[in-house]
Amino acid sequence: MAKKTEHSTKGAYVTTGAEFTRDTNYIEDRIVADPAAVRALPAPPPSKIGSLGFGLSEGAEAWPVEPGRYRLVAAAACPWANRTIIVRRLLGLEDAISLGRPGPTHDSRSWTFDLDPGGVDPVLGTERLQQNYFARFPGYSRGITVPAIVDIPTGGVVTNDYPQITLDFSTEWREFHREGAPDLLPEGGFEEMRPVIERVFTEVNNGVYRCGFAGSQEAYDAAYARLWEAMDWLEERLSSRRYLMGGTITEADVRLFTTLARFDPVYHGHFKANRNKLDEMEHLWGYARDLFQTPGFGDTIDFVQIKRHYYITHEDINPTGIVPAGPDLAGWLDPHDRARLGGEPFGDGTPPEPVREEERVAAGHNPLYPA
Amino acid sequence: MAKKTEHSTKGAYVTTGAEFTRDTNYIEDRIVADPAAVRALPAPPPSKIGSLGFGLSEGAEAWPVEPGRYRLVAAAACPWANRTIIVRRLLGLEDAISLGRPGPTHDSRSWTFDLDPGGVDPVLGTERLQQNYFARFPGYSRGITVPAIVDIPTGGVVTNDYPQITLDFSTEWREFHREGAPDLLPEGGFEEMRPVIERVFTEVNNGVYRCGFAGSQEAYDAAYARLWEAMDWLEERLSSRRYLMGGTITEADVRLFTTLARFDPVYHGHFKANRNKLDEMEHLWGYARDLFQTPGFGDTIDFVQIKRHYYITHEDINPTGIVPAGPDLAGWLDPHDRARLGGEPFGDGTPPEPVREEERVAAGHNPLYPA
Repeated sequence: MAKKTEHSTKGAYVTTGAEFTRDTNYIEDRIVADPAAVRALPAPPPSKIGSLGFGLSEGAEAWPVEPGRYRLVAAAACPWANRTIIVRRLLGLEDAISLGRPGPTHDSRSWTFDLDPGGVDPVLGTERLQQNYFARFPGYSRGITVPAIVDIPTGGVVTNDYPQITLDFSTEWREFHREGAPDLLPEGGFEEMRPVIERVFTEVNNGVYRCGFAGSQEAYDAAYARLWEAMDWLEERLSSRRYLMGGTITEADVRLFTTLARFDPVYHGHFKANRNKLDEMEHLWGYARDLFQTPGFGDTIDFVQIKRHYYITHEDINPTGIVPAGPDLAGWLDPHDRARLGGEPFGDGTPPEPVREEERVAAGHNPLYPA
Repeated sequence: MAKKTEHSTKGAYVTTGAEFTRDTNYIEDRIVADPAAVRALPAPPPSKIGSLGFGLSEGAEAWPVEPGRYRLVAAAACPWANRTIIVRRLLGLEDAISLGRPGPTHDSRSWTFDLDPGGVDPVLGTERLQQNYFARFPGYSRGITVPAIVDIPTGGVVTNDYPQITLDFSTEWREFHREGAPDLLPEGGFEEMRPVIERVFTEVNNGVYRCGFAGSQEAYDAAYARLWEAMDWLEERLSSRRYLMGGTITEADVRLFTTLARFDPVYHGHFKANRNKLDEMEHLWGYARDLFQTPGFGDTIDFVQIKRHYYITHEDINPTGIVPAGPDLAGWLDPHDRARLGGEPFGDGTPPEPVREEERVAAGHNPLYPA
């Protein structure tokens, strides 16, 4: 059976008869506090969720942490990119790592900077992210994905290995974290959260795509069953825990949240992940609202861009390109009463300041910012 | 702007740039108790909801009511056909008018009898309903629609004028109603219910199609606003009335119900009528459950055929042909507490007997008939 990746020719995401398989080959360079030390560490075992305490993958390079040198290119529409926007904000890395923001509807070649003045990223000077991939690897043939971190002096992409990027933000960029930044990877916590993060990735983050890009009724039915088994597991888990790992927000919550924020606006209808809306799942919906209302989470969500991205880009499942006007999103601000489960959202840390003006989601794109 | 009708070439329902417009040209013959008397009455004014107390439209003929002579061809999938199945059942016309049941996924030419043994309607002997249209009008070029009433001796379609068919079941076939049949058109009631029926037709029954078959974002956005304005009107109206016209079920309720039954399974996602699910609308959802649990309504609903019809037939809005597994339908059997609003569902009449074995919805296709 032919396999197709998410980032193939625009509009063609479904392969008839086939299950959807995500391309997990990324540029695995890393930006680290001590390149020499990292080079000396053993290569990580294969992982789709990133790794901690290991060195470089075969062929990968280590780049030095250096404030102002790198630009994070992250479309608000994309759930994988959204993770990096949230972690950067929670940790207060805005001054250390700038943010490039492609629009929601990439063309056949690439995510583009169509929302920027003149259609050009003001720092990189490029119109499309593909140019930055080519600056590093001429003729780069794999998917032009976000998030990508670009080396500003050369304009080349350093890494697009999204599961590793957020882990390195937490561990390698620690010197530049804001005062009061939360510890999203508490000591020993990564090993404890690994099975949760892995299951969330394969069954939920990617599980919704497996439903939406299924190439046969059988593949879809199997994907739907897998997804809802995992959703029921999460519903149960979150009935007694305020956050995925306990009383404090961790990396695991960031990874689940960006999928949950897209569930009712996109995955429920567009991807046919429709046993229930998220807002019918008592604990998952309470958990999602709790995070949404926590600084650093909901304030990064651009529902308008999210809907435009999926409904316009995936021509083969929505050929009219029409973007639904629903659902009603006001419920995201409803009280959640999750504090009754105890815990401290930021542990010993503090919430981040409000989003900076220039990075704020447009009015009307999120119930936190009314039109 | 080009206009396109619902029953055009298979798979092509959306006309780019255009609003969806329903073809309302039907075969307007009628089956009546006294043909000579009806021929003497004045022609009805133009109406998309049928008329009472008038004669024949220009060029139309009057056929005599005669038990056993006619066969109602009505696909369970189709909301317009579903109305006739419900009214036939409420009035107890099963012995007078037999029922032919095409499968949910008509081909490019016609609804077909693919679910019958040998793929042939056991009474009409045809494979596709188009043959019965051709038996009456060779080369018939308009849509091959259900419901259609076929004259069994000649095999020709007498009428497919669905808004008139249910009115005539109530008024012209009265001699053959079961004992205890409800009066769905109480004296003087039709004029009182006309504005309600008209608004339900243009804004809701047809309003969901206007959303789903919109040929531009602008047409969709306008259709969505119209639909939800009407849904809010109904929500308000049903907050204090058990049924649309008061305390007793009428024709108006039948006409709204078949759309509501399809709302969450189809219209919400497939037609992007997604401000809310029906089950988020307190009064509308209570009303819909109340009717669903009333003999004659829910027991005619085949959710599996409904989903297959829309998701497989409309290739231009769901080219993969994949049918969603959701939503969870168990809630249709939840208590509704609508009896608190008073009234008598069947007025002076009684509920119908359970559905006859040979006409029963297949197990697993409806929560009333568990798999």
